[in-house]
Amino acid sequence: MREILIAALCCFAGAATAQTPSLLGFAPAGASAETALEARFDTYLDATRIGARLKVLSDRPHHVGSPGDQLNARRIYDEYKACGFDVSVDTFYVLFPTPKTRLLEMTAPVPYKALLAEPSLKEDATSGQTSEQLPTYNAWSADGDVSGQLVFVGYGLPDDYDQLARRGIDVKGKIVIARYGRSWRGIKPKVAQEHGAIGCIIYSDPKDDGYFAGDVYPEGAFKNEYGVQRGSVMDMPIYPGDPLTPNIGATKDAPRIDRKDAVNLLKIPVLPISYHDAEPLLKSLGGPVAPEDWRGALPMTYHLGPGKTVVHLKLEFNWDIKPIYDIVARVPGSVFPDQWIIRGNHHDAWVNGAGDPLSGQVAMLEEAHAIGELLKTGWRPKRTLVFCSWDGEEPALLGSTEFVEEHARDLQRHAVAYINSDGNGRGFLNAEGSHALQPFLEQVARDVKDPETGVSVLERRRAREAVNSADTKQRSELLASYPFHIGALGSGSDFSPFIQHIGVPSIDLAYGGEDPGGEYHSIYDSYDDYRRFKDPGFVYGVTLAKTAGRTMLRLSEADVLPFDFTALSKTIEGYEGEVTALAEKMRESTTVDNRLIREGYYRLADNPAEPIQAPSPKTAVPFFNFAPLQNAQAALSKASGRLQKVLTPALSGDTLRVVNTGLYQAEQQLLSDQGLPRRPWYRHTIYAPGFYTGYGVKTLPGIREALEQRNWAEVQQQIDLDAAVLSQFADYLDRLATSAGAPE
Amino acid sequence: MREILIAALCCFAGAATAQTPSLLGFAPAGASAETALEARFDTYLDATRIGARLKVLSDRPHHVGSPGDQLNARRIYDEYKACGFDVSVDTFYVLFPTPKTRLLEMTAPVPYKALLAEPSLKEDATSGQTSEQLPTYNAWSADGDVSGQLVFVGYGLPDDYDQLARRGIDVKGKIVIARYGRSWRGIKPKVAQEHGAIGCIIYSDPKDDGYFAGDVYPEGAFKNEYGVQRGSVMDMPIYPGDPLTPNIGATKDAPRIDRKDAVNLLKIPVLPISYHDAEPLLKSLGGPVAPEDWRGALPMTYHLGPGKTVVHLKLEFNWDIKPIYDIVARVPGSVFPDQWIIRGNHHDAWVNGAGDPLSGQVAMLEEAHAIGELLKTGWRPKRTLVFCSWDGEEPALLGSTEFVEEHARDLQRHAVAYINSDGNGRGFLNAEGSHALQPFLEQVARDVKDPETGVSVLERRRAREAVNSADTKQRSELLASYPFHIGALGSGSDFSPFIQHIGVPSIDLAYGGEDPGGEYHSIYDSYDDYRRFKDPGFVYGVTLAKTAGRTMLRLSEADVLPFDFTALSKTIEGYEGEVTALAEKMRESTTVDNRLIREGYYRLADNPAEPIQAPSPKTAVPFFNFAPLQNAQAALSKASGRLQKVLTPALSGDTLRVVNTGLYQAEQQLLSDQGLPRRPWYRHTIYAPGFYTGYGVKTLPGIREALEQRNWAEVQQQIDLDAAVLSQFADYLDRLATSAGAPE
Repeated sequence: MREILIAALCCFAGAATAQTPSLLGFAPAGASAETALEARFDTYLDATRIGARLKVLSDRPHHVGSPGDQLNARRIYDEYKACGFDVSVDTFYVLFPTPKTRLLEMTAPVPYKALLAEPSLKEDATSGQTSEQLPTYNAWSADGDVSGQLVFVGYGLPDDYDQLARRGIDVKGKIVIARYGRSWRGIKPKVAQEHGAIGCIIYSDPKDDGYFAGDVYPEGAFKNEYGVQRGSVMDMPIYPGDPLTPNIGATKDAPRIDRKDAVNLLKIPVLPISYHDAEPLLKSLGGPVAPEDWRGALPMTYHLGPGKTVVHLKLEFNWDIKPIYDIVARVPGSVFPDQWIIRGNHHDAWVNGAGDPLSGQVAMLEEAHAIGELLKTGWRPKRTLVFCSWDGEEPALLGSTEFVEEHARDLQRHAVAYINSDGNGRGFLNAEGSHALQPFLEQVARDVKDPETGVSVLERRRAREAVNSADTKQRSELLASYPFHIGALGSGSDFSPFIQHIGVPSIDLAYGGEDPGGEYHSIYDSYDDYRRFKDPGFVYGVTLAKTAGRTMLRLSEADVLPFDFTALSKTIEGYEGEVTALAEKMRESTTVDNRLIREGYYRLADNPAEPIQAPSPKTAVPFFNFAPLQNAQAALSKASGRLQKVLTPALSGDTLRVVNTGLYQAEQQLLSDQGLPRRPWYRHTIYAPGFYTGYGVKTLPGIREALEQRNWAEVQQQIDLDAAVLSQFADYLDRLATSAGAPE
Repeated sequence: MREILIAALCCFAGAATAQTPSLLGFAPAGASAETALEARFDTYLDATRIGARLKVLSDRPHHVGSPGDQLNARRIYDEYKACGFDVSVDTFYVLFPTPKTRLLEMTAPVPYKALLAEPSLKEDATSGQTSEQLPTYNAWSADGDVSGQLVFVGYGLPDDYDQLARRGIDVKGKIVIARYGRSWRGIKPKVAQEHGAIGCIIYSDPKDDGYFAGDVYPEGAFKNEYGVQRGSVMDMPIYPGDPLTPNIGATKDAPRIDRKDAVNLLKIPVLPISYHDAEPLLKSLGGPVAPEDWRGALPMTYHLGPGKTVVHLKLEFNWDIKPIYDIVARVPGSVFPDQWIIRGNHHDAWVNGAGDPLSGQVAMLEEAHAIGELLKTGWRPKRTLVFCSWDGEEPALLGSTEFVEEHARDLQRHAVAYINSDGNGRGFLNAEGSHALQPFLEQVARDVKDPETGVSVLERRRAREAVNSADTKQRSELLASYPFHIGALGSGSDFSPFIQHIGVPSIDLAYGGEDPGGEYHSIYDSYDDYRRFKDPGFVYGVTLAKTAGRTMLRLSEADVLPFDFTALSKTIEGYEGEVTALAEKMRESTTVDNRLIREGYYRLADNPAEPIQAPSPKTAVPFFNFAPLQNAQAALSKASGRLQKVLTPALSGDTLRVVNTGLYQAEQQLLSDQGLPRRPWYRHTIYAPGFYTGYGVKTLPGIREALEQRNWAEVQQQIDLDAAVLSQFADYLDRLATSAGAPE
């Protein structure tokens, strides 16, 4: 048995012929057919059509609850219909605040009333649709009417408040102004609120997002002085989706909690402003000069306050329930109709949203078009394809979260994988997702050509990494071989409920890096902006369609689903190394720093004329018992290796069906029943958005965040919990290997 | 013999008593007497007198050739006289250009005429002395009347031109504008000229030197929009001093070369400007956006040009011969009158120069005052003390260089050490110099108290290093023990001719780090500025006097001169490790980078819409024979160890005299006859100012710069040359050890 298996494996994994590359999950003949199918798929993709579709869908503002949103839902519905798909609309009813009153004024030392408006430009055809545009605001700000001294808090993150404290500055009862950047925006008012601030202003500094970066719109792509980044400030690291219906779909009749009981809503008012509006406020601040790292590109000395500067912030919102429209289009599988390959991209925007989200949406619709053309030739997918055009992503991943919460049980039973995209542009492939799909995605990247250079998108990524690396050893290694790594998923788009709430293997795909600009969430994210600065010719729209299309088609047509849990096991092992090293590093640095504090070194290093007090000593970091985690990892490594050996074309019939189901449901084993501490909606033990980063991922989040937050008891609890989950996962893979015929 | 020696050594090196710390070069009784002497010395130091002296000496502009310069020379002469010293004036006659015509205007796309002036301020009493002030200019700019397209060249260093070349930009026949910073200013026009530019403008960006750093003058200490940094742009890395009298003193009758034959003078016009004047020029530039690293804090997008921007630069100078006055004051030694301890600080300034150089000058005069008071009590130094107040440092180290060139032979025979200072302010001790004096300087730093914190200035330095280090291991090591290191000397003050031209052991001392500001070489370097922002209370003037005073007194009174060549040997060994590693690193990175270039990775990583071409492939780095250097180092290590063992109080009489002379003349063994390639004036094989850094030091300069400039044949020549010099040095120390009675 053993030798046969090995022979089959060689045949299966090796390169078949010069014409046909090996494809994970396919026997050579299947790989040839799949390659031919993909070539046909490509012939139906058309950049001009992508561009035309983008122009139509971005022709007016289409935020949640707007006529434009409803119109686009209809257009998308019609387009799927025209592809011959089975289309439905999942409508949910969600809370969505829109501004009623917005006032920001400086009352001392000199009066200034903030404009809070982005002017229309003759170079931007849709920028003048003022009556339909949502004004500049942060959704989920609290209603409020507050006046207080102003304090500049840098990027508004926890460490920044430590810096303020060392300079004797407290924000209690004051209004803070923070720079956009370094975290998801919603973290800034949350941390401000935690520190007792009564209001929060977030501004775009021209250093991060304006003239420092490049010429400003409409001359160039970067943010002009009036541009404002709208966006959600719901505390989505607690839970996303409709705040009134946590864990359940926000259907018409769903039970709803009271708004004041929604723990992910802020208690303080928050407003985003332009650098035009920020400049007079910041310029008037007294107090110490800001740390160098906080200073931006406005022509002035940045001070911290507080001082004579007093601002008045008044915000009121319409707290309405609005309908959202998820358009769901299905192509039933001909062989495994109960196994679903799900593709998604949202369609709602803050304003016209040509880049975010329509550039991804129109590529996805082009994939649907190509599938429709394939259907016309008589082709049928083996597995069911599902296209989802989500509504309400911008305020809080509303459409995808409500859908997932509503259909959790079916999705956990049937969903093979969820493939997400969002904004897209010129440049390099960025892929993130479930690491069991990493080797599979490497093959996809190997087989898609970059439109600018003609090499594979994999090779182009490698070139960038090699050229950008400052480390000769790393460059040399990249020349020898390219270890393709995908990032882990945090949050910021619709994959979050799939992977983090219900454990559906997920992937997020985007091209970018040659499309920077300042249009994000402003009225200038328009067709005119996009075609000039983001993807002229829409060729990266085609490239995204090729990439996501191959991902869908290979998952749909593979004999054995191309999961590789040895890749996941190695990745988790890396994370374990990181948290172990983090504990060690924190222990050492705490010991040394406490000595420096207690023995007066900070005082001696300080400048008595501009004092920066020593930080407070920190609690010592105990030693933790990592053994349970290490033992679980050893079991996982063994089990995943044992399983991988038997995932060959030798599998067939019921065994194949059982194995495939076991493969795509495996990630659910990584969920914990209780979820993460203080945010049980997040149940994945390996991946979560950071509590204090927002979009940014935390891997092994339970352990890592307990460490970062110096909650020592919780560190050990989380180590034990993750070890139990990983053990259970190892057992699961082991049983699956046995089902697949692995020798004991 | 051996055991006796060891016993003597223990006694000599160990801590004597709780009251008296051990002092290198002193037997315990001598250490007690020396400590008592230093305590008496301190009692004569007075901050108020230092401040009053600073006010007087900065009361009017006193640049070379000005009435104020002559007046200050007289005042300083009188003060030394009042101390009871033997005072003389060494007058030299040097070339010194001053402006006749200064015109900078933009002629296209819009006209702008640069102000080229710093306004007087009511908050600064001397800023209105317009008639006596040197206008804003760079001394040693060529005469010129040029018009051309403008190109922004970043900091104007060789790598910056590589960046321009990769963007297809050539400066030939154009005028460049460079930012101050990252190198000595004179490097910028030199590199511009090497690249074919016809003119060079240097401006102060508010990022480096203006509102980004802090509040501007007179509100705060930083450069206001009109402030301009004057300064020399002679190519001093070729040779400093009067350009017409290289290698010889510029006495009245000295033979002079023709100005056009002076290889350290530029051929193109150069002008420094304020950021007020730079802004319209930079703002008008077209062309690609500047690399991120080059962009400053002006409120605009920084472009490179060239484009429509044309500037006209017209400069004419009076090329006059001016007298300079070095004031030299001697206190003859009572025991070893032929052994000279030399202390120096310049007195000339660009304008009023309260900080640069008077803050150091007034501390030095306070040391002289205290020595004078000691003389009144009947005390006499064992060795001869020499105080030098140099003229003409600012244009080109004129006073010190001409003095050293004129008296080279006597100095090499008699000078034990040269102790330099220049500007001084609040903060931390910065010591640089000959590494054989490193352990000695550590003891000096141990024995001087910081006026703000009451701990030793050594301990305060340690605290700053520990607190500022981001590396836990390094912090931990600093808590365990403090390895005091002094920096190597580059250029930028009057130590340069002493150490680099004639091998006199040299030290440079300054306090600073809590005295930042933008007054440097502007009319705002005034008493009013100094007392507000630099050293209010003048307590660091006293601290510098204590530090330099101890340094002089210990060198003067020691039995055995406190040189430790094991410290120098270890330092050189470190430098050897650096150049060996540099060759290895360059070899590896060249190999890898050439592959990345030749195999097209740069093209693949490039953004076709904003192309940055690949660099050109570089010649491969051969392997070098470092063995001669390693063998020489082994000999040096052994010889220095052998010598150090016998430097004990057991030495006396003629042996002591021979050994002491051998010790202070040892550094001359590190000179090479031919000097550095293409700049033979620089003869020290271990320390030199960098050919492309200016002030910044290059250690093992022959080898290191040949490597950096990829001159492979020269690398090996320089290795062999340095190896020969080090072997000779090792032999010298060995012979000295034998003279001192070391067993073979």
